[in-house]
Amino acid sequence: MATEATNGAVAPVQPVTFTGLKSQVFVEASKANDAVAFYKAAFGAEEVNRVTHPKRKADQELPLLLSAEIKLGSSTILISDLADDSTPPHSVKSTGLVFCLETEDIEAAVDKAVKAGAEGEVTEGEGAWFGGRVGKVKDPYGIVWLICTPAKKCGDVEA
Amino acid sequence: MATEATNGAVAPVQPVTFTGLKSQVFVEASKANDAVAFYKAAFGAEEVNRVTHPKRKADQELPLLLSAEIKLGSSTILISDLADDSTPPHSVKSTGLVFCLETEDIEAAVDKAVKAGAEGEVTEGEGAWFGGRVGKVKDPYGIVWLICTPAKKCGDVEA
Repeated sequence: MATEATNGAVAPVQPVTFTGLKSQVFVEASKANDAVAFYKAAFGAEEVNRVTHPKRKADQELPLLLSAEIKLGSSTILISDLADDSTPPHSVKSTGLVFCLETEDIEAAVDKAVKAGAEGEVTEGEGAWFGGRVGKVKDPYGIVWLICTPAKKCGDVEA
Repeated sequence: MATEATNGAVAPVQPVTFTGLKSQVFVEASKANDAVAFYKAAFGAEEVNRVTHPKRKADQELPLLLSAEIKLGSSTILISDLADDSTPPHSVKSTGLVFCLETEDIEAAVDKAVKAGAEGEVTEGEGAWFGGRVGKVKDPYGIVWLICTPAKKCGDVEA
């Protein structure tokens, strides 16, 4: 992955390609399971994938949902529990909805968005989003964009 | 997980087919044009469609955007100005993001969602969303879903 320093003099604008865009709905833990059931009942959604929080299986009856992927029409959205020990993206609690953009080069994507006027950062490790590496961009209109690699879906843990 | 109707003895479940799902971003009027420019600069978005508010062309320099459709990866989202004389969907001002579900049968879709536990209504005419006919569903998790026919895209006026 080609990553340039973010504070160089000459801005080497890299071509950033996004391969996917998904909307992610955050609900109060641990209501994501109920929310998925609701979307099935209300909209005929089809669940195509489910990843639970690995740390919660032992001490909770209902493991938190890192993300359930549900299909509506030809699109998919992600439903996730807001975990206490995760760092939620800015203002998730007020919006409940963020966009997930998938790209192979998180740094370049965040860098480009920041140059365009957004607030942005890349976090990694325990303090990051569910322990994964993810870019977070808040645009000038208050919308939050998570920027992830396609292999690690937004909200997922490594397999 | 098999999901049964949550209330009611025998729910006459109508088959509702959704043909499309789009996310719609609402911004303070008249910043939608700037937002589209930002998403082009920040994420390389491509504008594929633009519908302006017909009533505003005469008395405003910049006509309000009913919806601009931008493409990100293989997905499209809608960017819209919040018009003063429109009835915004519940809590749009706090979220800025809603889902648009496209179906040929708005009533049946709203009815099914309400039976599943959502708040819902179908509005039409001048008091409705930009004068069009649209279903509005607020799910138990605070997320707003606009339910429209595919011919009349969410946020669009009749051609």
